Amino acid sequence: MEVAHMLLYEGKAKQIYQTEEPGVLRISYKDEATAFNGEKKDTLLGKGRLNNEISSLIFSILKEAGVESHFVRRLSETEQLVKEVTIIPLEVVVRNVAAGSLVKRLGFERGHKLKTPLVEWYYKDDALGDPLLAEAHIKELALATPEELAQMQQMALRVNEELQKLFATINVDIVDFKLEFGKTNGEILLADEISPDTCRLWDKDTGDSFDKDLFRFQQGDLQEGYETILSRLIEAHS
Amino acid sequence: MEVAHMLLYEGKAKQIYQTEEPGVLRISYKDEATAFNGEKKDTLLGKGRLNNEISSLIFSILKEAGVESHFVRRLSETEQLVKEVTIIPLEVVVRNVAAGSLVKRLGFERGHKLKTPLVEWYYKDDALGDPLLAEAHIKELALATPEELAQMQQMALRVNEELQKLFATINVDIVDFKLEFGKTNGEILLADEISPDTCRLWDKDTGDSFDKDLFRFQQGDLQEGYETILSRLIEAHS
Repeated sequence: MEVAHMLLYEGKAKQIYQTEEPGVLRISYKDEATAFNGEKKDTLLGKGRLNNEISSLIFSILKEAGVESHFVRRLSETEQLVKEVTIIPLEVVVRNVAAGSLVKRLGFERGHKLKTPLVEWYYKDDALGDPLLAEAHIKELALATPEELAQMQQMALRVNEELQKLFATINVDIVDFKLEFGKTNGEILLADEISPDTCRLWDKDTGDSFDKDLFRFQQGDLQEGYETILSRLIEAHS
Repeated sequence: MEVAHMLLYEGKAKQIYQTEEPGVLRISYKDEATAFNGEKKDTLLGKGRLNNEISSLIFSILKEAGVESHFVRRLSETEQLVKEVTIIPLEVVVRNVAAGSLVKRLGFERGHKLKTPLVEWYYKDDALGDPLLAEAHIKELALATPEELAQMQQMALRVNEELQKLFATINVDIVDFKLEFGKTNGEILLADEISPDTCRLWDKDTGDSFDKDLFRFQQGDLQEGYETILSRLIEAHS
């Protein structure tokens, strides 16, 4: 069939293709790095492989811990199979430690440990630059129902618990991370990816970043940082 | 006593003085207009009088409707007496119609009527530019308890009902407005001012602005707009 492997979507870091199996899609991770809503970009050889391997590993570990996601299985070094979902246009950010916009917008000291994990909602809209939303905005924009918000918040905090445990085993603090959720048959599933592109990961001893801040602020070698995360995860979990 | 009339605070639009009566302060409204967090400023003769007269009238009308505030009484053309409160560092914005940041940040069409009144919280912090807060930020920053937030939200919506009724009598739509609240003896009171400096007010027929947007965007004569609001209010309510 001609439509079998049609490219359905191409984003900044991924391509999504149909497969022969209904309801299952193939994600191909690209080597492109972008930051600041696409203003800064570059091609970083191997980045697609690293994010696919790390995200596949994390989704597998989460599944073992009882957290379901769209992830079906790793297909190749740069590809994975996922369930087809309709993405809810919200970026759900969980923070344990102040960094990024919490420092810039709200005056927190970088590295300040938050009293409790903080969940933020951002409007997934590139043209608007993914602005912060209060729950009242989400209601007015009808992006999700209050019940869906409560469910996503609960799932996000559950993922946070598991990621904190996971990264503690490799001597890394998970400072914050971004999740996306999708709907299929009325069910909400964790979707998108969990990788150093979507997390802030700091070494517990040195404070070194192993995440996209390496690229954002030219602090060091992105591939080396991501490779460190992957190799530590493999060592600890296989 | 020397301290009797000490200047306690000078803001962009007001000075606050002690009085001989404990727990009562005198607010003197200034002729200064500022916008965009103080980046644009000017002296507009008569603005202090207009805001004091309008705010005094509105607080009196709200009191008759059962909404208590810090307002005690009008003292002179440019002054009023108020109860001393500790201001909660939140700007509480109520919106009925999309304008301002709802258009710029979130892509609403200017003039779009919201499904329900929308309450937003901003961090009252000039250095940070009064950033938008989600309730999770307020909790982390310990700016107010969840109970205080719920009470302020309820009071803000109650004020909105009364302002909608009031401005309807003078053929004006109240598009949005900013409130501040203060605490005294554990009680939360409406505080600050309610004036064309803190509201967006549009003529129901022509759509003309009678508020600080006249100054922000040099759309017309600020004093003339404020004078229209004051004279219509006096005509309708005395």
